[in-house]
Amino acid sequence: MQLTSVRLEPPYLLYLGDTPDDDHAKTGHGIAYWRPEHCAGQMRLGDCPVDLGLPEMSVADAVDAGVKTVIIGVAPLGGQIPDHWLPQLIEFARVGIDIASGMHSKLKSMPDLVAAAYKGGSTLTDVRVPPANLPVGQGKPRSGKRILTIGTDCAVGKKYSALALHRELERRDFKATFRATGQTGIMIAGEGIPIDAVVADFISGAAEVLSPDNDDDHWDVIEGQGSLWNPSYSGVTLGLLHGSQADALVVCHDAARTNILDVFGDYPIPELDEVVDDALRLARRSRPRCFCAGVSVNTSTMTDFEREAYLGKLQDHLGLPCVDPVATGMSPIVNFLLKHA
Amino acid sequence: MQLTSVRLEPPYLLYLGDTPDDDHAKTGHGIAYWRPEHCAGQMRLGDCPVDLGLPEMSVADAVDAGVKTVIIGVAPLGGQIPDHWLPQLIEFARVGIDIASGMHSKLKSMPDLVAAAYKGGSTLTDVRVPPANLPVGQGKPRSGKRILTIGTDCAVGKKYSALALHRELERRDFKATFRATGQTGIMIAGEGIPIDAVVADFISGAAEVLSPDNDDDHWDVIEGQGSLWNPSYSGVTLGLLHGSQADALVVCHDAARTNILDVFGDYPIPELDEVVDDALRLARRSRPRCFCAGVSVNTSTMTDFEREAYLGKLQDHLGLPCVDPVATGMSPIVNFLLKHA
Repeated sequence: MQLTSVRLEPPYLLYLGDTPDDDHAKTGHGIAYWRPEHCAGQMRLGDCPVDLGLPEMSVADAVDAGVKTVIIGVAPLGGQIPDHWLPQLIEFARVGIDIASGMHSKLKSMPDLVAAAYKGGSTLTDVRVPPANLPVGQGKPRSGKRILTIGTDCAVGKKYSALALHRELERRDFKATFRATGQTGIMIAGEGIPIDAVVADFISGAAEVLSPDNDDDHWDVIEGQGSLWNPSYSGVTLGLLHGSQADALVVCHDAARTNILDVFGDYPIPELDEVVDDALRLARRSRPRCFCAGVSVNTSTMTDFEREAYLGKLQDHLGLPCVDPVATGMSPIVNFLLKHA
Repeated sequence: MQLTSVRLEPPYLLYLGDTPDDDHAKTGHGIAYWRPEHCAGQMRLGDCPVDLGLPEMSVADAVDAGVKTVIIGVAPLGGQIPDHWLPQLIEFARVGIDIASGMHSKLKSMPDLVAAAYKGGSTLTDVRVPPANLPVGQGKPRSGKRILTIGTDCAVGKKYSALALHRELERRDFKATFRATGQTGIMIAGEGIPIDAVVADFISGAAEVLSPDNDDDHWDVIEGQGSLWNPSYSGVTLGLLHGSQADALVVCHDAARTNILDVFGDYPIPELDEVVDDALRLARRSRPRCFCAGVSVNTSTMTDFEREAYLGKLQDHLGLPCVDPVATGMSPIVNFLLKHA
């Protein structure tokens, strides 16, 4: 079957609308940061304060620059595309530029936009829609090597860590592919499967399709989703873990987080040695030799001194490389990974 | 929100078509066995050899007997409704009798049937379609008591064991509700949520909706799905486990099974003490006081002597009641459950 439902063609124009702040423009920032070579420009409405540092473009500019895809790089509250963005999106569609969105409201459910895309020969891509006809997981051992990021909670840096691992592997001339499982990751990679939008029966099947058989020396770096310790999303995480057949896990954590976010009730984040043990025990069901290659911690609330003390202590305790992917980089984890794989 | 997507009104007529054998009529057998008081009759085509022991009925007989719902009690290969069944189903719809199906092909996708149902005022229910607008799991502790069946694999008796537990609790005049999570269970209960058809993000939310707050002395007996040890479906199982907030688990097993069915690769079923420990460790994330109330084993391949020796040895080893739900009954597990809850 076709690997994924989504393929985005660069160069991109990142559409920001009149988004009020950077928090709502994480997708745009992610794409601009990780794929600057694919980003030709940005478009904003009115006095939108968000700035990705890309050239400002009109529709005509985008045509001149050879832009192939407009990516809606923001997530407005409620996930709906506001009506007043529609005229510009329709203009893009009319001139044959593709449009991609990860929002809850689907581009393909907007009749005027669909009509314009039909006339203009433009493709509308709703990134949150999983591929049709995903298989049930088969459990069959696969060739190639895979590493998966596992979070102590949601929003602790699983995507960032996976992208940083992938970049470090490529920097060292290893064959590696970033495998995206969430909307922003998919837009950065240009392809992927939105694993949390898949029907429950097919989670591990989707994970198997996402990271298929590969060369023995090739690494798939798989973006984790949810958390085994978050009772809202643990099913997604376990299905992804079992389907991924990871050779190695990287545990991702936010040092400032003591409890699972956005749940009601008492859900403390376990100690990290327990996290590693529990994750490996589950992972080894489908990949008996799986090991933990390190811990990637968001320590952005710490001073340099605090960070050094925290990571040093953690590293001594776990016997694993412990890094902040932004402040200290992924190199120690990649060293450990390559030594033990 | 409305508790479940499905409500079936008895009395039922069980439709068997020309199903070739009992293996393809498990749904019909399950409904006839567990809900005889709801079953008015059966209908077969030609020389169908399957017999549920119910009165044979024509459409006119069904009208006379006050049948409210025709349930398609079979699962043909491929899950499609054969064209030659359609004339009879259309006749039922025309006379205002509801139709329910758990097959992959949807009743509501058959235009002639939909038209007949519209004219006749009959409701078409596709049991595999989950409710719309399920919430994300919240993790909020709930009142009431819940027990969940957990399988060492798929098809080891989770539904049967849950129904037998429910029956035993009701026999002892406890307040109890069977909570169905699969198509046959839903048809037996008359309501429920097909948990494996829910979008991955909402598995535990669906489980929370399925077993809501209740009286402190009320038991929800929840039908398990999939298996934590089956890499194809483990995500469904963990989401259901975390969302159910079970006070007690009953482990279900098939004594003749040493490996997970229908997967490719080496997936031995772990020892049962390991199964109990692993399941409790995960369950306690959302219900810290969760305990195991016993093990329910399909020992149908054993002689009475072998069964007694097997269950006795297992019981000594685990320190938990170990039963065959058919051969020895659920009473010891319910005794243990009520003593420790």
